[in-house]
Amino acid sequence: MSDTELPEVEGETQLDEDDRLKPEFVRAVLDAVEDGNDEGARALVEPLHPADIADLFELTPEEDRGTLARAVADLLNGDVFAEMNDYVREQLIQALEPHQVADIASELDTDDAVAIIEDMDADEQRAVLRALDPDDRAAIEEALSYPEESAGRLMQRELIAVPEHWTVGDAIDFLRGHDELTTDFWEIFVVDERHKPVGTCQLSWILRTPRDIALADVMKREQTLIPVDMDQEEVALRFQKYALISAAVVDASGRLVGMVTVDDIVHIIQEEAGEDTLLLSGAGEGDINEPIRFTVRTRLTWLLINLPTAMLAATVVGLFDDRIARFAVLAQLMGIVSGMGGNAGTQTLAVVVRALATNQLTGSNTLRMIVRELRIAASNGTGLGLLVGAGAYLWFGNPGLAIVFALALFINNIVAGLVGVLVPVTLDRFNVDPAVASSVFVTTCTDSMGFFTFLGLAALWGLGG
Amino acid sequence: MSDTELPEVEGETQLDEDDRLKPEFVRAVLDAVEDGNDEGARALVEPLHPADIADLFELTPEEDRGTLARAVADLLNGDVFAEMNDYVREQLIQALEPHQVADIASELDTDDAVAIIEDMDADEQRAVLRALDPDDRAAIEEALSYPEESAGRLMQRELIAVPEHWTVGDAIDFLRGHDELTTDFWEIFVVDERHKPVGTCQLSWILRTPRDIALADVMKREQTLIPVDMDQEEVALRFQKYALISAAVVDASGRLVGMVTVDDIVHIIQEEAGEDTLLLSGAGEGDINEPIRFTVRTRLTWLLINLPTAMLAATVVGLFDDRIARFAVLAQLMGIVSGMGGNAGTQTLAVVVRALATNQLTGSNTLRMIVRELRIAASNGTGLGLLVGAGAYLWFGNPGLAIVFALALFINNIVAGLVGVLVPVTLDRFNVDPAVASSVFVTTCTDSMGFFTFLGLAALWGLGG
Repeated sequence: MSDTELPEVEGETQLDEDDRLKPEFVRAVLDAVEDGNDEGARALVEPLHPADIADLFELTPEEDRGTLARAVADLLNGDVFAEMNDYVREQLIQALEPHQVADIASELDTDDAVAIIEDMDADEQRAVLRALDPDDRAAIEEALSYPEESAGRLMQRELIAVPEHWTVGDAIDFLRGHDELTTDFWEIFVVDERHKPVGTCQLSWILRTPRDIALADVMKREQTLIPVDMDQEEVALRFQKYALISAAVVDASGRLVGMVTVDDIVHIIQEEAGEDTLLLSGAGEGDINEPIRFTVRTRLTWLLINLPTAMLAATVVGLFDDRIARFAVLAQLMGIVSGMGGNAGTQTLAVVVRALATNQLTGSNTLRMIVRELRIAASNGTGLGLLVGAGAYLWFGNPGLAIVFALALFINNIVAGLVGVLVPVTLDRFNVDPAVASSVFVTTCTDSMGFFTFLGLAALWGLGG
Repeated sequence: MSDTELPEVEGETQLDEDDRLKPEFVRAVLDAVEDGNDEGARALVEPLHPADIADLFELTPEEDRGTLARAVADLLNGDVFAEMNDYVREQLIQALEPHQVADIASELDTDDAVAIIEDMDADEQRAVLRALDPDDRAAIEEALSYPEESAGRLMQRELIAVPEHWTVGDAIDFLRGHDELTTDFWEIFVVDERHKPVGTCQLSWILRTPRDIALADVMKREQTLIPVDMDQEEVALRFQKYALISAAVVDASGRLVGMVTVDDIVHIIQEEAGEDTLLLSGAGEGDINEPIRFTVRTRLTWLLINLPTAMLAATVVGLFDDRIARFAVLAQLMGIVSGMGGNAGTQTLAVVVRALATNQLTGSNTLRMIVRELRIAASNGTGLGLLVGAGAYLWFGNPGLAIVFALALFINNIVAGLVGVLVPVTLDRFNVDPAVASSVFVTTCTDSMGFFTFLGLAALWGLGG
């Protein structure tokens, strides 16, 4: 294979201005692989950061990932797998032998190794664990004994813990003298004789302090300790609230068992904050790499849950069949009342769900929030009501219709504001994730109440009667 | 004032299991303040972390915040202000004298000081800047010269930069010998004689390496440099992608001018990921502390933008007025067709908006995404169509109506899947934030097309004719 076959891509041009791999680059790699030019593909992929190699696999069509993996096999190390989307990783891992997976896992910190191994079938998992050396195996088996999405799965067991009575100099000598220690730490933990954390030292404090000073005089005694069974979402909120870089993980008896670092938390913060958008719309975890049958199942379930609410609204309309038959304009305008109410309800819902997720809305300010949303709904309802009322009068020349339309829109805005707060707050009180279940209830209310107030007021006013 | 008046709250019980201040605690503090028992209030607030003191102010009703601030004035330091919601902070800062604000700002790193000062009126800002000492003033003025939400505003100028030819020992001696240096750093930057970064050293590497080794042999040469005018959202994505703890900020000529640390990025990641939920619903930034008139304006604007789309859908219905008058069942069922299409479109939209925001959807896989969504829409449309068709047949006993209903629902699902991808992808291509503008277009399509296909097919079939 001659060098002239290598596709020309210049050094720093694989990424666009948003740090995404350029489509031309991805195409060049896949073309090289397809032409059997593995050397060319490797030359292109080699300069990439592990995170970008992971992205490359995600951007490659599912059916071509195996060929690509074989072509650049020597570049596929643990760091690349650690950065990869779960589904894409699972697909690639399935094609590997247990000892190959074990080799990859043994390069990694416990947390990343666990992430790779935890989704495997029980049989394959056992085979991989058997192929690991005993220390790694014990660490990973222990991590797997903690619940999914808990601090125990997230933490790494590699950390630096030193006794209380040491000086700064002792700590530095210890770090220099033990090659087997991790280099991936930002703070050291000071522990008592029962291995309970008593303080934390930022490395910068150690470097700024003379050697003969006791660690006990440098360390910070107030610590944020993470229980090993804490849910990862709470761990993320705690890191964020207290601006932590790393934190000690303790078992039920308070002993130090691991450490969580912020770089493992950042993607959880991003996922947890972003998942509300997906959950509110009923799109599940919304992973674009998920096998399509799972996606269909998740979304269809949501649509089926929404179907009865749409039918309920249709039943409300059905109550006024005769009137609609006599005055079909009602059928035209009723959708505006329900739709605008739905929009207003969605606004309130989004704000409340975010405020709950970020711990800004608590028992202390719930009442204030309700009052606030009602004031907003009253303002917006008045403005919109007057506008559509005037519009309907000019268009249809029917003052009764205009008044009924305006009034229904106003009332539905108030309903939207009220249920937009009450539904998520109530669900949260009962420990149901408000992002998952709120929007069905809110839409049911704004649809049905929109139709009911509009058609009901029309009946009272005798429109089409 | 006697000690017996102090409300009883035990040491560690101010926070609930989600690290939120308990309503009882907030109430106890506010009761103490209201009773004029400032000492009691201070005793309660003093043990709190700055982040919790900031939360306390956010949870306090607007009209009571001033009194609380006076009662616990000595606990209100820079760290508390740095953690506080922008609007709440602005309100408190307005009540302070310029020299008080200057005192608070001078305790902080540049980035936090800038956050406090950047939102002030020009006059007050000048007064505060005059009250600062010249070094602080220069640093803050320089930061303010960069665009809002850019790396220049986020960065701190306090950092450790050392020359290339130093050894590990030189660096440690330098850090120990200069009291004026910051203690808030996790990596040191190695620079050439023109102050351009040439490498980065994690502090752990320095601590693990003998004193006589050259920094050039320890440092990592591949660095992720942040241009000073980079938008904070891109900075956040870069931190996340490459799992950075800190990063050097460089000016246009490549010189090191500051440092961004991950603790300043974490809340941006959270905000940026969470804001899609708010933007998609038209709730603006959705800050519950925002003055209500701003909130009303933002939300009303969105509702007014949606009004014409609701009217367009109403006009489509109007085309079939006669038919509806003859066969009012159509008015009942049309909302189900448009509503289910709207739900399906919202699902696709949420997934695509998240995939775009997290850089998972690029030019390389857009076509694959469209095909994927069409397959999902076809599956769900078939399932739902058969279900509602069978239901309508059983209920109304009208095979024509059942077929038209099923077919319309199927078609509207396909429309939803298609516009759910195409709208956000197209907006993104034109550099419009897809979260802001997509949902109007998608809803317009699913509403209008839902009504049009259902009523149009009904007309073709001769239903109600």
